[in-house]
Amino acid sequence: KQIAKIAVLSGDYIGPEIMKAGLEVLAAVSQNTGFNYQINPVAFGGEAIDKYSDPLPDDTLKTCQQSDAVLLAAIGGPNWDQAPKRPEDGLLEIRQKLSLFSNIRPTHISTAMQPYSPIKIGQPVDFVIIRELTSGIYFEKPRMKNANEAVDTMRYNKKEIQRVAKVAFDMAQRRKKHVTLVDKANVLATSKFWREVVSKVAQDYPDVTYDTSYVDAMAMKIISEPEKFDVILTENLFGDILSDEAAQITGSLGTIPSMSTGQTGPALYEPIHGSAPDIAGKNIADPISMIKSVAMILEHSFDHYDLAEKINSAIDQTIQAKIMTPDLGGESTTAEVTEKIINSIQESSEEYVTNNV
Amino acid sequence: KQIAKIAVLSGDYIGPEIMKAGLEVLAAVSQNTGFNYQINPVAFGGEAIDKYSDPLPDDTLKTCQQSDAVLLAAIGGPNWDQAPKRPEDGLLEIRQKLSLFSNIRPTHISTAMQPYSPIKIGQPVDFVIIRELTSGIYFEKPRMKNANEAVDTMRYNKKEIQRVAKVAFDMAQRRKKHVTLVDKANVLATSKFWREVVSKVAQDYPDVTYDTSYVDAMAMKIISEPEKFDVILTENLFGDILSDEAAQITGSLGTIPSMSTGQTGPALYEPIHGSAPDIAGKNIADPISMIKSVAMILEHSFDHYDLAEKINSAIDQTIQAKIMTPDLGGESTTAEVTEKIINSIQESSEEYVTNNV
Ligand SMILES: CC(C)[C@H](C(=O)O)[C@@H](O)C(=O)O
Ligand SMILES: CC(C)[C@H](C(=O)O)[C@@H](O)C(=O)O
Repeated sequence: KQIAKIAVLSGDYIGPEIMKAGLEVLAAVSQNTGFNYQINPVAFGGEAIDKYSDPLPDDTLKTCQQSDAVLLAAIGGPNWDQAPKRPEDGLLEIRQKLSLFSNIRPTHISTAMQPYSPIKIGQPVDFVIIRELTSGIYFEKPRMKNANEAVDTMRYNKKEIQRVAKVAFDMAQRRKKHVTLVDKANVLATSKFWREVVSKVAQDYPDVTYDTSYVDAMAMKIISEPEKFDVILTENLFGDILSDEAAQITGSLGTIPSMSTGQTGPALYEPIHGSAPDIAGKNIADPISMIKSVAMILEHSFDHYDLAEKINSAIDQTIQAKIMTPDLGGESTTAEVTEKIINSIQESSEEYVTNNV
Repeated sequence: KQIAKIAVLSGDYIGPEIMKAGLEVLAAVSQNTGFNYQINPVAFGGEAIDKYSDPLPDDTLKTCQQSDAVLLAAIGGPNWDQAPKRPEDGLLEIRQKLSLFSNIRPTHISTAMQPYSPIKIGQPVDFVIIRELTSGIYFEKPRMKNANEAVDTMRYNKKEIQRVAKVAFDMAQRRKKHVTLVDKANVLATSKFWREVVSKVAQDYPDVTYDTSYVDAMAMKIISEPEKFDVILTENLFGDILSDEAAQITGSLGTIPSMSTGQTGPALYEPIHGSAPDIAGKNIADPISMIKSVAMILEHSFDHYDLAEKINSAIDQTIQAKIMTPDLGGESTTAEVTEKIINSIQESSEEYVTNNV
């Protein structure tokens, strides 16, 4: 059997703490399963600026390109705010260099998590935001600033929209079979263009229903009727704003993973939160977002849905047992939460072995 | 004494229903107060397209320009979606023609409203969003779309930022003395420029504290810590998204007014919601957003804070008495809510007269 190659980018501040937790869980869940992997740790973000004056050194990029998947913890911090190339620039660059044009953000509020949500939820919430990640106002030119004015450019071509739309409709086919395109087509030319292109892609998916929503209206609906959605497709900037809003309704950013993919090459998995300098080194960072990123890597890059399931139910058990870090109102440490998750995984594996003897 | 001139744009679908309610309350609250006004009803939006093939006819614009304030209900609807100039285009045009560069959106969750909020609120919420309204990606060129690509342009010059920043800092001086600029300065050139210009304006207001937040982070904080903010300043597109999100946490869009102002000339007051074709003609539209717009007009265009206060406390009493339209879970009609508000106003006026005999 082939060995799965995973590039590991631990990053800054709480990054290494939660990466350690994620890798421990990966080791535990893969034991005796036939899933074999090899990790390649490389420098990225602030750490890489300190060592190589570059948030994305060539060697790091090469390692990522030669891996089957990339696992990233979190980068950035006040130390590098004045750097000519900041850690965030490395993030934008790795997205572009690996052509990771679709960013996939699940918003799932399990029964175990409902009490921790800041919104009053009536029904289970389970939707996914697909954000275009390598074009639009984040990357296009002209971009300029002088003493009197500044300009940014939002541009999209047909191909950029088509490929990410396909990701959304493919995903909807495996889920609740509905896609909602979010735009500002009552004002923006790019939004009108998105509507044109996406409605054509939709015709290739007769089993998937399709509608559209303005971005301002969607900012409301994420709060008032999050249970109504399945796959939400949108451009880069709107996706940035809405996916963070969606993360917030789950209760803690510390629990949300994400995945970014291209057409070929490795996908990248990372928690959606930052490097949290204020709580670094205190052993209180929530490891769940990282551990869920590990679950996503197993499911999506290595087709091990079984192992992802094991991790996710171990997380639910841990929350139900109130073994939680302070972001969820608990008093447990990063290490304690991780240990409990690993124990739950091992118990479920033993049960499994026993049941199948 | 001079007579206040108010241009009245009732608009489409529920527009005329709620405008009627607003004008009845205006009549009731001004009685025997020395506040004299005259209303000039003019066509706008879909109504104006039907009559004059133009959502903003010249006569309507002229009446607005010659008034001391403009009261607008709601416009738009499926009838005019294919019109060459849609009702929404009229809205963008009136903003530009009247130079209404700052849009002011209060988010206030009174104790009476707390049970209707979709979020779990610990503390009272009271902040204001100041949205730049006549520039940015809504209006700038190039804007184009062909068969293969589309472009929009986000541009700001110094003057456009300075004038709206001053509105924000002036407002903060009359409130809790804090301004938060919302931007995406880790990516956009226009956002970096906003930071430069606004931080200079801030120096003229030593009594106002000032900080900044990224727009994605703010989309989260509006849900997780709305009690922390005072005045939120932001550019046009971010303001569109965040102000609707903020409206949602109050429980019903049907209760939120807004105000748009320029340097000189009339300000425009309107509910933040649309024309709600689905509930038009049923006598169930919530009139509160319109009635609060009337309160704002009295306070801000005519310096009658006393009358605004009377309206707002009558609204709170009405909600506490559970006289509410269906959007707030009530069973009362538009007319019943309006009548109860008018009764509360009249009772408080009588008390006042009695106490002062
Ligand atoms: C750090 C920043 C450039 C980045 C973005 O805006 O894409 C972040 O907010 C994210 O969503 O991953
Ligand atoms: C109708 C639309 C053009 C408008 C806007 O985006 O400004 C609306 O959403 C608003 O916020 O007043």
